Amino acid sequence: MTPQEMLAVAVEEALAGRAEGGIPIGAALFGADGRLLGRGRNRRVQDGDASMHGETSAFRNAGRQPTYRGTTMVTTLSPCWYCSGLIRQFGISNLVVGESRTFTGQHEWLAENGVRVTLLDDPECVTLMTEFIAANPALWNEDIGED
Amino acid sequence: MTPQEMLAVAVEEALAGRAEGGIPIGAALFGADGRLLGRGRNRRVQDGDASMHGETSAFRNAGRQPTYRGTTMVTTLSPCWYCSGLIRQFGISNLVVGESRTFTGQHEWLAENGVRVTLLDDPECVTLMTEFIAANPALWNEDIGED
Repeated sequence: MTPQEMLAVAVEEALAGRAEGGIPIGAALFGADGRLLGRGRNRRVQDGDASMHGETSAFRNAGRQPTYRGTTMVTTLSPCWYCSGLIRQFGISNLVVGESRTFTGQHEWLAENGVRVTLLDDPECVTLMTEFIAANPALWNEDIGED
Repeated sequence: MTPQEMLAVAVEEALAGRAEGGIPIGAALFGADGRLLGRGRNRRVQDGDASMHGETSAFRNAGRQPTYRGTTMVTTLSPCWYCSGLIRQFGISNLVVGESRTFTGQHEWLAENGVRVTLLDDPECVTLMTEFIAANPALWNEDIGED
């Protein structure tokens, strides 16, 4: 699969989250063989669960894995410290990022630490978050721990 | 509450996890006023949930919070990158660590980045993890993403 094809799965998750009234960030984890291991979306609003960012949700839904070597995390938005820490701790090899214009997380830090990062700068992802943040600034700040 | 009193809550969680056959790591999040916001334990074995380390479990159980300024995360074991990223992203102000002998996570990195860290070097926590790792090396490696 191409990075853009993997991103399409994460975008589907983000759009499903938006339709639920949630924060429109989605992610998916693919195996070294390209198989989808898990997909998920931010669940703060839907479940009242502050721990479920898009990436942690996809990771959770992938279940227990013996190794993450060769896997790819794809996310609609540059990962925050929480999700970047996840990627680094578990040795996820590759990261595909939809966009980093509306929020610049730690994808560069991950690249400096050995993760192969592909930044797509996808216009649909940019529009999705731009509209969401403009309409819901307090909810967005809550999700990234900004007072 | 003293750091040792807060640690006692995390140790209760770790012991409950051990009794369930799980990975014996517990944590709790306390508010700026000392009130317990949430407590939790590693749930990899119990729920098949790779995303629930002690700290993320306590964070989740605390529910949505408008701010984490002034809060204290207490954990029986030095936090890995995943849990350290959580603490940094959400601006959790204080960290109490039971021990860092059996696993040295990123508590020093957090201290360098403004978190007030208290390392207790608690003998009960050391014994708990020493015994667990000796008996379950593969499970432990899975939990920290080591092949």
